[in-house]
Amino acid sequence: MEQQSELQEPTYAADISSIREAQIRIEPYIHKTPVLSSETLDVLSGKKLFFKAECFQKGGAFKFRGACNAIFSLDDVSVAKGVVTHSSGNHAAAVSLAAKLRGIPAYIVIPKNAPKCKVENVKRYGGQVFWSEPTVQSRELTASKVQEETGALLVHPYNHEHIISGQGTISLELLDQVPNIDTIIVPISGGGLISGVALAAKAINPAIRVLAAEPSGADDAHQSKLAGKVVVLSEINTIADGLRASLGSLTWPVVRDLVDDVITVDDWEIIEAMRMCYEILKVAVEPSGAIGLAAILSDKFRSNPAWKSSSNIGIVLSGGNVDLGILWDSLKK
Amino acid sequence: MEQQSELQEPTYAADISSIREAQIRIEPYIHKTPVLSSETLDVLSGKKLFFKAECFQKGGAFKFRGACNAIFSLDDVSVAKGVVTHSSGNHAAAVSLAAKLRGIPAYIVIPKNAPKCKVENVKRYGGQVFWSEPTVQSRELTASKVQEETGALLVHPYNHEHIISGQGTISLELLDQVPNIDTIIVPISGGGLISGVALAAKAINPAIRVLAAEPSGADDAHQSKLAGKVVVLSEINTIADGLRASLGSLTWPVVRDLVDDVITVDDWEIIEAMRMCYEILKVAVEPSGAIGLAAILSDKFRSNPAWKSSSNIGIVLSGGNVDLGILWDSLKK
Repeated sequence: MEQQSELQEPTYAADISSIREAQIRIEPYIHKTPVLSSETLDVLSGKKLFFKAECFQKGGAFKFRGACNAIFSLDDVSVAKGVVTHSSGNHAAAVSLAAKLRGIPAYIVIPKNAPKCKVENVKRYGGQVFWSEPTVQSRELTASKVQEETGALLVHPYNHEHIISGQGTISLELLDQVPNIDTIIVPISGGGLISGVALAAKAINPAIRVLAAEPSGADDAHQSKLAGKVVVLSEINTIADGLRASLGSLTWPVVRDLVDDVITVDDWEIIEAMRMCYEILKVAVEPSGAIGLAAILSDKFRSNPAWKSSSNIGIVLSGGNVDLGILWDSLKK
Repeated sequence: MEQQSELQEPTYAADISSIREAQIRIEPYIHKTPVLSSETLDVLSGKKLFFKAECFQKGGAFKFRGACNAIFSLDDVSVAKGVVTHSSGNHAAAVSLAAKLRGIPAYIVIPKNAPKCKVENVKRYGGQVFWSEPTVQSRELTASKVQEETGALLVHPYNHEHIISGQGTISLELLDQVPNIDTIIVPISGGGLISGVALAAKAINPAIRVLAAEPSGADDAHQSKLAGKVVVLSEINTIADGLRASLGSLTWPVVRDLVDDVITVDDWEIIEAMRMCYEILKVAVEPSGAIGLAAILSDKFRSNPAWKSSSNIGIVLSGGNVDLGILWDSLKK
């Protein structure tokens, strides 16, 4: 086991040092987001829940941490021609805002089915929009073309060491705000967020358990953990527009080794969790952001004896960019 | 003027001392609520806006401050038979919760048209509900009957010295969090909130200006200020269910002397401000709570040269108890 651990560690794309460096680098730009709690939700879940409200982050999602770290890590010559990325919205807005702060152009490839409010965020922060089909292949191909034409650097939404380190700053803040957390539950998509969170949290306290929450209609992380290798789904079906990506080469090793389990939930559970966030916590949380609460309240979590000992649970409310109309249409169904 | 000021001051139901005492009394029970800001809304308004997010207060509204102060000010003998009140919801839930913490019964008279989520809050906190017609007369009559039958003490929603002092603690917190605030905008209904806020703020810094925001369909404070006496409206028509009360004998003198102006806004402006709170600030704010933002963005405020010099504006987001269905139905109209 000792030997295995020594072999694995160097393969991770970030560690506690790079995450602490990221924290210092991005501190002048980001919001230190509040931790919310609710006695009503504590009673409902039977746990003490601590909600890390990244919906209040600049750009409305955690993505600004990673984008900021990536863009401010680069030297002036490297970024002179700007940056390019592909994203369903939150990473796109984050890159646009970080690029604006750095004073460089941002070229953003967005799939046609991205929520309107997320596209508006990109435009508000000065990002130049290029449309793609709503597939990973089309997104990457369009981004490559833009990269060739402009000479801009690609800032991948999750398979990128500085992105992972930036997202990991959430754990540093959360464990500073609530030191006795024993479990952290994190939405999983490409794995950048959960990789950073797990690497930082387990470095600070190896006893902390990290749980991924994933839509059952996009359960590639769940399947990958079962198979012991990255599984890419041929079909994806979920309301959580931020959780449709597949794991990357840099995030998979962390997910494989440090994520204790994956809980999958159905879209109706996500929507019900969004409603609770609104009516009880009083915060606007997008479907991808509410999935952690959905997982905690799910039968799968409650009935699993492995989680009985979790008492103080951190839940990352990853973002709050949601069109009110879409929320309401979902609630009515 | 000197003489007039000397004559008036003793008539106010609270002062900076009673408000500081309230702060110490309620501190173990209340949340210190965060102050939110948004560059997007700063650009839109042309001001620096600081949102005091009382939607995150226990019970979902500022009302818990006053209720807590009133109920914990009373001696054990006085409160042995419990407390009674009448309220459209937020004060009702606040009294229920404070009574529960004090270990005494709470009897709550609620008008039949109160929002469902507010009634649920009352029940959740153990308050016993009595229904009345949706008029001030019916509310007060029903409360009197309950009072006679139970021997409980009446905790008036706003015309009560401890209530006013409790609400005033918002100014102490806000001016501690953002010391350079020059203007505070507050929703006005019965006047308990704005009286406490104005008394505390002007005692700390007499140069701070206090502005009331009121629905044009329930503009009794506006009319009262014009007439120089309390005006009670025969008809009230607004979506803001928390802003339908009339000024009281204890709140009117404060509103008359210390509130610099009243801005009235239409319901559509309130609804648009609610949408902005949700989509930009990422918080759930009820119509009564969003009216301050609506006022700041209104033509009446922008075009009034008196407010040109206001730069750092505190906005009290007074509560967040809103049924999602009602919000959406309003947005569609």
